[in-house]
Amino acid sequence: MSKPSQANKKKSVWERKDLLGIQDLSADEIELVLDTAESFLEISERDIKKVPTLRGKTVITVFYEASTRTRVSFELAAKRLSADTVNISASTSSAKKGETLIDTARNLEAMAPDAIIMRHPIPGSSDLLGRHVKSSIINAGDGAHEHPTQALLDAMTIRQVRGSIKGLNISIIGDIAHSRVARSNIYCLTKLGANVTIAGPATMIPLHVEKMGVRVVRTVGEAIRDADVIMMLRIQRERQGKVLFPSDRDYSRFFGLNMENMKEAKGDVTIMHPGPINRGVEISPEVADGPFSVILEQVTNGVAARMAILYLLIGKGGSDEAAA
Amino acid sequence: MSKPSQANKKKSVWERKDLLGIQDLSADEIELVLDTAESFLEISERDIKKVPTLRGKTVITVFYEASTRTRVSFELAAKRLSADTVNISASTSSAKKGETLIDTARNLEAMAPDAIIMRHPIPGSSDLLGRHVKSSIINAGDGAHEHPTQALLDAMTIRQVRGSIKGLNISIIGDIAHSRVARSNIYCLTKLGANVTIAGPATMIPLHVEKMGVRVVRTVGEAIRDADVIMMLRIQRERQGKVLFPSDRDYSRFFGLNMENMKEAKGDVTIMHPGPINRGVEISPEVADGPFSVILEQVTNGVAARMAILYLLIGKGGSDEAAA
Amino acid sequence: MSKPSQANKKKSVWERKDLLGIQDLSADEIELVLDTAESFLEISERDIKKVPTLRGKTVITVFYEASTRTRVSFELAAKRLSADTVNISASTSSAKKGETLIDTARNLEAMAPDAIIMRHPIPGSSDLLGRHVKSSIINAGDGAHEHPTQALLDAMTIRQVRGSIKGLNISIIGDIAHSRVARSNIYCLTKLGANVTIAGPATMIPLHVEKMGVRVVRTVGEAIRDADVIMMLRIQRERQGKVLFPSDRDYSRFFGLNMENMKEAKGDVTIMHPGPINRGVEISPEVADGPFSVILEQVTNGVAARMAILYLLIGKGGSDEAAA
Repeated sequence: MSKPSQANKKKSVWERKDLLGIQDLSADEIELVLDTAESFLEISERDIKKVPTLRGKTVITVFYEASTRTRVSFELAAKRLSADTVNISASTSSAKKGETLIDTARNLEAMAPDAIIMRHPIPGSSDLLGRHVKSSIINAGDGAHEHPTQALLDAMTIRQVRGSIKGLNISIIGDIAHSRVARSNIYCLTKLGANVTIAGPATMIPLHVEKMGVRVVRTVGEAIRDADVIMMLRIQRERQGKVLFPSDRDYSRFFGLNMENMKEAKGDVTIMHPGPINRGVEISPEVADGPFSVILEQVTNGVAARMAILYLLIGKGGSDEAAA
Repeated sequence: MSKPSQANKKKSVWERKDLLGIQDLSADEIELVLDTAESFLEISERDIKKVPTLRGKTVITVFYEASTRTRVSFELAAKRLSADTVNISASTSSAKKGETLIDTARNLEAMAPDAIIMRHPIPGSSDLLGRHVKSSIINAGDGAHEHPTQALLDAMTIRQVRGSIKGLNISIIGDIAHSRVARSNIYCLTKLGANVTIAGPATMIPLHVEKMGVRVVRTVGEAIRDADVIMMLRIQRERQGKVLFPSDRDYSRFFGLNMENMKEAKGDVTIMHPGPINRGVEISPEVADGPFSVILEQVTNGVAARMAILYLLIGKGGSDEAAA
Repeated sequence: MSKPSQANKKKSVWERKDLLGIQDLSADEIELVLDTAESFLEISERDIKKVPTLRGKTVITVFYEASTRTRVSFELAAKRLSADTVNISASTSSAKKGETLIDTARNLEAMAPDAIIMRHPIPGSSDLLGRHVKSSIINAGDGAHEHPTQALLDAMTIRQVRGSIKGLNISIIGDIAHSRVARSNIYCLTKLGANVTIAGPATMIPLHVEKMGVRVVRTVGEAIRDADVIMMLRIQRERQGKVLFPSDRDYSRFFGLNMENMKEAKGDVTIMHPGPINRGVEISPEVADGPFSVILEQVTNGVAARMAILYLLIGKGGSDEAAA
C-alpha cells in the first residue's frame, strides 16, 4: 500500500465549498481527498468509532431517489465525526406540495445546515443548489450526470489494493450511457493517469465517449484481457424507462462477468462493483464472492471517503489534523 | 430592533406542561417565548451550533401528515439543544394497525419521552394527548385548528423587523377558513395589540370571524393599502377535498400578491408567508424574492422559536440562563 | 419485588454474539438479561436519561415490516446508552433493487456497525444473518418464528410484579400458531419454570404444540381460571392472508378477555398484551385499562430490556458495571 504518487507532491489545500462532481477537480484535489480518507479509515475500526471533529455541525441528507447504501454511508460518516444528521426522503418532501427545488434548498439553508447531501434524478440539480445556497452541497448522485463520492471511494480502493492508479489498465463494463458511476469514474481515473477501457451493449455506449479519453471495445473479452482492474456496472432495471437489451439471461451471457470469461483475465486482476449487485446478471456469484473481488472493501472505504469529504468541506484546517 | 414592549414588564414564568395553541396563552407568556427565542437565535450562527441544555432529554416527533419543513425545524431545534430525537411518520405508525391515538400516545409515554411533538389532521388531537399523557405535548399543527409554533415564529419575525407588534396593521390574505396558521396568528397578533385585517375568497372566510377581533375586507387591495405587514397564506391544494375557487390563474388574479398590487402597499411593508410557497399562485416570484420579503427569516426564526418552546417546556429554570 | 431466583445462583456471563431467539438460551442467560435490564430501568427515570456506556458504537435498525413501537423502543434503548443509531425501513431498502438479504447484510457489515437489529417477515432470516456477518444480530421479529426481546420484557414484567416466574400458572390466549410473541414466550416461561397454558381458536393452535411443554385448553374460561398471569395476543389482521375466524365480534365473544370472563380469574391476576391492542376485539377497554393490566409497564420495561441486550452484546464487561 505504498503511495508513490504522494512522494514529491506539494501539499494541496481544499478550497471548494461544494462537491458537485469529479469533472472539475484537479488530480491534486482528488489525491488530497484520498489521503484524508485513508487517515479516517481506522476510526471505523476503533472500539469507540467516533471523533469530535464535526461536533455541533449540521448535515442534512435529502434523497429524492431511495438509496439505503449511500444514505447510510453518509449518515455514518457524519455521525462518526460527531456531526448532527437530519434525513429527508423524497416521499415526505415539500416537492409533493409544489415547491421548487431551489425554494426547498433555500428553506433548508435558512435553518443553517453546514452541509446538504442531495440525491436527485435530474442531472445538474446539485450544481443548481451549489450556486444558490451558502451551505456546502454534496452531490450524492444527480441523474446520469455524476456520483463523485462513488468515484472517490473507488479510486481509494484501487490505490489501496494496487498502490497507485497511474498507468493501470482499468475496464468499466456495462451500461455506460446511463451510469453516473461510470462518468465520475472515467473523470477520476483518467485524471489520475489510468488507461480506461469501456465495454457494453451498443445501446449503452454514449456517442463520442472517446472524447472523455477512454478506449471503447466491442466485447467483454477484450475489456477483460489486459485489465488490472475490472469495474462492473449495475444493470439498473428500476431506472430505465425502456428495454435496452432483450433479457437478463442475454445480458449475462454477453456482458456479465463469470468464471468462464474470468479465465481470460490477468492473474492478479481486481474486481469491483458499486452495488447493489444483481447476482447472476452483470456478475456471477462466484466472481462477486471470489478472491479478486474488493466489493465489500469499496463499501468500507465509502464511509471513510465520505468522512473525508465532510471534513474537507465543513471541518477546519488541513488533512494533517484530520483524525486527531 | 428595540423591544419597547419589554420595558416595564415584570418577568413572567412558564408554567405550562404543553404548547397546544395560542388561544390559551397570555400576552406575557407569548413574549416570554419570543424573548427566549431571540436569545437562542445566535446558537445557529455559531461554528459549533450546539449547547448542552437538553442533554439526555428525549424528544419524539410524530407526524401523521407529512411536513419536511416543520419536522426538520423541530428536529434541528432539539439537536442544537443536545436532546435525543426519534421520528415517527404516519406511514409507519401503529395507526395502520388499528390502535387509537390515545393508546399510541400512552405507549410512547411509557418509553419516557420528555416531549412529544405531533402533527395530526384532526383538530383538538393535541389537546386530547395533553390531557392523557404526562410528557409535554407540542402541537405542530392539528387540522384547521392551531399551529402555535408558526404563529410564534411569525411574531418573532415581525418584532425583529418592526421593533414591536403593538399598533401595527397586519393583513392576512388567503384561505382563512382552512388555515391553522391564520387562526394561531390571529390569536397571537391580536393578543400582542396588532390591528388584524383578513381578506380572501368569500368561500374561504369563516362565518363570524369578526368575533376573533379582526376586520374583514372584500378585496386584496383594501388589505394591502394600510398594512405594515402582509401575511400571505399558502393555497393548500392537497388539503381541500373540494374546489373553492375556479383555477390557480383566477386565484392569482384576484387574491395573489404581485408587483402590480404591491404598488398600493406602504413603502416599508413587510411580506410574510409560512411556506412552502406556490410561486405565481398566492405570491409572485418578484414579491417572494423581493426586498420586503422576510420569508426566509421566518424559517431561520422557526428553529429558534422551537428551541425556546422545547427549553421552556422541558428544560430547567427561567429564560435568563437559556443560552448559557 | 424480591428476586428469589437470584439467591444462590452463580453469576453467568454472556458469551453470545447474537440474540436470535429464546429457544437457544439457558435459564441462566435469560436471568442475566433480566437482572441487567432491571439495573437499567432507572436510567429512563433520570432527569438526564443517558449514560455513556455505548458511546461511539453504531446500531443499525433494519425493519422489513413496519413497527413503530419496537423500532422506537430499540432506538431509545441505543440512544440512552449513547450509541449512534441509523434506521433503515423496508420501503427504502435495497431489497427493492433485487439485492439478496445476505448481500444487504454484508454491505451493512462493511460499514462496521456494532449491532444490526432486524425485523423481517421470513422465519430464520435473523439466524441467516447471524451466521454470515460479524456484527451482532438482534432479532426484532422474524415471521412467525421468534421475537426474543418481547419475551424478555414480558418475563421482566412478570418477575417485577410477581417476584418470581417459577411455579406460576401463565395462560397465553389467541392466535398461537401465527405468533412469534407466543413462541418466544413459551420458550422463555417454560425455561424459567412456569406452567404455561394456551388457548385459542382451533385454527390458531399449532399441531403438536404440547411438545413445547404447554397445556392446551379448549376454552378461554379454562385458561383464565387458575392463571396467575394472562397474556392476550394481538389479532394480527394485517398479517393473515386468510380468514381464520368469522368476524371480530365472534372472536371477541369466544376468545376475548372482558369484564364478564374476568370474573372467573384469580383476585390478583396479572393481565398482559404485547400491543398494539385491538380494543374490543381480543381485550375489552375495561380490562386493558383496569387495575390488573401491566400493558404499559411492559412498554417501559421494553426499553430497559433492549438496553440490556445491547449492553450484553456490544458493551464491555459484566452486568455489575452496567449502569455505572
